[in-house]
Amino acid sequence: MADYVHLPICQLAPLIRKKELSPVELTKASLQQIERYNPKLNGFITVTADQALQDAQAAEREIAQGRYRGLLHGIPISIKDLFATRGVRTTGGSKVFADWVPDHDATAVARLRQAGAVIVGKTNLHELAYGVTNDNPHFGPARNPWNPRLITGGSSGGSGLAVATSQCSASLGSDTGGSIRIPSSACGIVGLKPTYGRVSRYGAMPLAWSLDHAGPMTKSVEDAAILLGVLAGADPKDPTCSSRAVPDYRKDLASGISRVRLGIPKQFFFEHVDREILTAVETAISKLEELGARRVPVSIGGMEMCSAMEAHITLAEATSYYEHLLEKHPEGFSPAVLTDLDAGRFLLATDYVKSQRARTLLQQRFAEAFEHADVIVSPTLPAFPPIVGEVYVQSGDLREHIVDAFLRFNIPYDLTGMPAITVPCGFSSSGLPIGMQLAGRPFDEAMILRVANAYERATDWHSRQPPEP
Amino acid sequence: MADYVHLPICQLAPLIRKKELSPVELTKASLQQIERYNPKLNGFITVTADQALQDAQAAEREIAQGRYRGLLHGIPISIKDLFATRGVRTTGGSKVFADWVPDHDATAVARLRQAGAVIVGKTNLHELAYGVTNDNPHFGPARNPWNPRLITGGSSGGSGLAVATSQCSASLGSDTGGSIRIPSSACGIVGLKPTYGRVSRYGAMPLAWSLDHAGPMTKSVEDAAILLGVLAGADPKDPTCSSRAVPDYRKDLASGISRVRLGIPKQFFFEHVDREILTAVETAISKLEELGARRVPVSIGGMEMCSAMEAHITLAEATSYYEHLLEKHPEGFSPAVLTDLDAGRFLLATDYVKSQRARTLLQQRFAEAFEHADVIVSPTLPAFPPIVGEVYVQSGDLREHIVDAFLRFNIPYDLTGMPAITVPCGFSSSGLPIGMQLAGRPFDEAMILRVANAYERATDWHSRQPPEP
Repeated sequence: MADYVHLPICQLAPLIRKKELSPVELTKASLQQIERYNPKLNGFITVTADQALQDAQAAEREIAQGRYRGLLHGIPISIKDLFATRGVRTTGGSKVFADWVPDHDATAVARLRQAGAVIVGKTNLHELAYGVTNDNPHFGPARNPWNPRLITGGSSGGSGLAVATSQCSASLGSDTGGSIRIPSSACGIVGLKPTYGRVSRYGAMPLAWSLDHAGPMTKSVEDAAILLGVLAGADPKDPTCSSRAVPDYRKDLASGISRVRLGIPKQFFFEHVDREILTAVETAISKLEELGARRVPVSIGGMEMCSAMEAHITLAEATSYYEHLLEKHPEGFSPAVLTDLDAGRFLLATDYVKSQRARTLLQQRFAEAFEHADVIVSPTLPAFPPIVGEVYVQSGDLREHIVDAFLRFNIPYDLTGMPAITVPCGFSSSGLPIGMQLAGRPFDEAMILRVANAYERATDWHSRQPPEP
Repeated sequence: MADYVHLPICQLAPLIRKKELSPVELTKASLQQIERYNPKLNGFITVTADQALQDAQAAEREIAQGRYRGLLHGIPISIKDLFATRGVRTTGGSKVFADWVPDHDATAVARLRQAGAVIVGKTNLHELAYGVTNDNPHFGPARNPWNPRLITGGSSGGSGLAVATSQCSASLGSDTGGSIRIPSSACGIVGLKPTYGRVSRYGAMPLAWSLDHAGPMTKSVEDAAILLGVLAGADPKDPTCSSRAVPDYRKDLASGISRVRLGIPKQFFFEHVDREILTAVETAISKLEELGARRVPVSIGGMEMCSAMEAHITLAEATSYYEHLLEKHPEGFSPAVLTDLDAGRFLLATDYVKSQRARTLLQQRFAEAFEHADVIVSPTLPAFPPIVGEVYVQSGDLREHIVDAFLRFNIPYDLTGMPAITVPCGFSSSGLPIGMQLAGRPFDEAMILRVANAYERATDWHSRQPPEP
């Protein structure tokens, strides 16, 4: 069982289906991993061991009776602790909500349960998913499984480390400025931010409603496709959720990438990047070329305004949402978050509106690039995670604040709403994982999954395990 | 020909198609109406007589050669002067743009041209489509054809009076807070605000991009269906424009309204309304019941917040768009508009965001009402238009500012993006037209057109002509 727990869902599911693997045993193995790793890495705020075992037993019974629900049936999954879970406290990483026990499931959670997934617990995150220093003042920092002195990156840091250390087979994360992709890259797993509107956010505590995305964090690209297929689709409870039909994301996953055009941006996306990261991503692009893809230079201007746009929009929306709590419970917020949200009160409407309008310009520029390319490739992060508490990193020739560094290549796709996936593409000399980001056209998750899957099948970065705790 | 010019497009088109009516003669008749009425009512800022005659001749040649394009071929149409027209100045009712000659057509204009319409000129509007006092300081007020001492209501006032007095067969208007429906109601014509995203706004000078709609102003409901069919549909130049398929809006127009559920809101939509208007709308609802529809009481809370929401959103978006001109050319703005846009600079982002968020709540409340109803019925306006320069009106028991009065029943549908049509339903004892508003589910223009058409066919309010100038 100790070996099974490290397998991706796409390998576990056939065994469960054939009754060669017991969901109860698998769940127990996940819970043992949590017992081993959680004291050191702090990935979970709440572990729901008893309920998980009951749910695993129920799954096992159903499967024994021939009622197999699909590939997530009996699979242990964790949930970022900002998605509402019925009867289980949902803290948002915040002291203000430390005792909130929702009476409902977020739609994404309900869909995972409906698909038979076994929820093992709620994962650690930044306070209100805000900031990326990962130094959660209320629940402690999530620590990097490859070097526990370092941060995971955030905000879905608990989810990232939990999947990397097989405390669960997959996790549900959220991404406003990179919060799925950043910790996925830093922990060496696959993270998919779907198109804006592809997955319901109903029941997710909002950070910035026009930027928030929910999506899967997994051990393999195929696993991301499996989870997306369950999570995606219309939800009357979330009016921003698209009613567009959900394709079978696994269908063309292995159909190869012959003649797929890899857009390589001339500006911005390869600037101020750690040398080892650059080399790893360059090597990965060459590997994709070997597999049949073509390299196409693309030019996408205006990326330097993304940072201010993201800051304006997040500040205004988060402050407008949490303003009443700032007044009632200022003591419930850490000084850093309190200061930022207070600053949001003075932001002018015209600045916010200009930032929102500029998103349309960005979308048009990407649309032009996507006339020549099928995916756009970049590093996911320009630097490696620093030690817990440190907020400066070295991005190649540039020493910069971690927020500037880690959000840099991620926010263009939150602002434009385009889907983006990070996939492991190497390790630094110090043993830290490196991620490659592939972005696609709106609602074309199938394409980035296909390219990422081809790369994953041709390499074996995903098979490396973090050291023992 | 003097009689033909008063016919709706649905009656003109078959005559043109059969070559019994000459587009050139029809266009000449429209231009004669402009000559007669424009000096008194001031409906046009620019008349494009020479070009219109050339276009009419071209249409006549094409039709003679058997190349009939469709129901708008050879029909004289006017354009609100905020839609860009290639080679023809487009003022936006503003001194700042008084000499702007675009090098392109707005998409809506291009589609009308493509359908063979003959553009006779650009109609008067409020300065930048802002405010509803209709006292344009740069180009003079548009005057009500039923009593030229009165305003038309705005902002598409020139379009409203031009259609009512047969200076054109239809007009292209825009609606941010009621600007299609208000003057349509006050001038006694049909005005349709389509669903947000149904008609491209590319090339339209924006007032508030998240509220702006383009749509037809016509002599009959069928004409509105004809124009909408030409105007609607995806436009890559307007990213907010929906790619949803465009139905044939004329197909079920005459299929009756048996068992259609008329939602009659208990609150708000029938409060503080002129007694004669209330009676006319009540009588119209009874007529719809006679025709087979059923009356269903609906309850839609929260309408009292619409006014502040609309004000916040319009101010923030308009100011952010025009801010650079406010600084460079303050002398180009009237004091009233300058003051408002200046005030917009101090609006906080959180207020704007809260107003945008509340739109989702409104949409949900309407969605609940639409579980019990197929259309929602109300008066279009609670009061009659005042004399030019007067800004207070009497709405039943309430004396109020015209902006509060005229926007009141209109803005809920700009904020929610739902389609709404106004159709003439009577006249006051003083001879002023009264409009009934029918609102529908998002993208269900077909339903409100069907109900409006059934009503129009059963009554003859639309056949009354305004007095001679």
